[in-house]
Amino acid sequence: MQKLRVESFTISVDGFGAGPQQSLENPLGIGGTNLHKWFVPTKTFENNVMGKEEGTTGIDNDFAKRGFNNIGAWILGRNMFSPMRGNWSDENWKGWWGDNPPYHVPVFVLTNYPRKSLEMDGGTIFHFVTDGIHSALKKAFESANGKDVRIGGGVNIIQQYLKEKLIDEMHIAISPILLGAGENLFSGINIIDLGYYCAENISTENATHLIIRK
Amino acid sequence: MQKLRVESFTISVDGFGAGPQQSLENPLGIGGTNLHKWFVPTKTFENNVMGKEEGTTGIDNDFAKRGFNNIGAWILGRNMFSPMRGNWSDENWKGWWGDNPPYHVPVFVLTNYPRKSLEMDGGTIFHFVTDGIHSALKKAFESANGKDVRIGGGVNIIQQYLKEKLIDEMHIAISPILLGAGENLFSGINIIDLGYYCAENISTENATHLIIRK
Repeated sequence: MQKLRVESFTISVDGFGAGPQQSLENPLGIGGTNLHKWFVPTKTFENNVMGKEEGTTGIDNDFAKRGFNNIGAWILGRNMFSPMRGNWSDENWKGWWGDNPPYHVPVFVLTNYPRKSLEMDGGTIFHFVTDGIHSALKKAFESANGKDVRIGGGVNIIQQYLKEKLIDEMHIAISPILLGAGENLFSGINIIDLGYYCAENISTENATHLIIRK
Repeated sequence: MQKLRVESFTISVDGFGAGPQQSLENPLGIGGTNLHKWFVPTKTFENNVMGKEEGTTGIDNDFAKRGFNNIGAWILGRNMFSPMRGNWSDENWKGWWGDNPPYHVPVFVLTNYPRKSLEMDGGTIFHFVTDGIHSALKKAFESANGKDVRIGGGVNIIQQYLKEKLIDEMHIAISPILLGAGENLFSGINIIDLGYYCAENISTENATHLIIRK
């Protein structure tokens, strides 16, 4: 069975998956970059995202690595793809990642504003889905060649799929930082009533890792 | 300078300081007891609360222990003292802790319902304060003999003191569990805008410990 997975999604101690005021300068909002101090030094990040050979191994890297295993497609909220809001007035914007994004599979971007698909180097193709989360999931499963689908975020998209009980597994990392404001992952969500439980947990000096399953 | 401190206050990954539906059977709400799996095995808990000699040492115990250092008075919300709501119809209720509570200093219980002070064995005396958080704090500082005052909780009381920027230091522990519902410590609070920051953090296999200061 194909699974819908959230992987390496990181929140602050006060619950925020990104800081406030996302912009071109602060793709993760103010202070948001600090969320990923557990992830950025890992071999997985260095290899898959930066194209380098270096990087740390160990528990943090194990979690980072499993997030890329058996993924055939991604789903992203529009703000994960772009700091712009509203119409795609600047079609030159092709994501935060340059010509060769770290996905290498189809990526379905949820948006209210239609845009033509965008084929990038290295196998990534961005499709813009305007007819909702169920449609995006159907398309993602179909294009994933039997593999799983990973939701990249943000909080709003994860919450939409959670409320429909469509997520099979979530790896959540808690970074020991405070953001003060932003989008709170568990706000308005009763994760227990939705049928989820904490299946695994382990802490490193950089983060607390949880596996949440149905 | 006397400080107002929160110590060993534990929240779930989804942010809750207690589970839902507090009762005589579930003083910490449903599932709430699991919050304290890092605390209960420690030597500090065994010595100070259970009156036993055994218990674990190490990082978790170090945090538990510092919570009792230099404390001259406590402030508790009424629900920390009792599962009852409304008037004190049953004056036989003398707290969750038996004849010799683990405080051994004056404890100021915030409530809307007046009640006579209650002197217990071992130096604990419960005072019931009906004229608000500022009055309780003034009384607690006065009776603390120059030592610090510790807020025991719950979430609502901590939030009231936080919003007034009256708390000097908080030790928050995050337990790797999900509660789904309850009182969320950071809900409606922008801890950064209030002038706080994360001064220290360290994780064990049982909890992530944060020291938050102004």
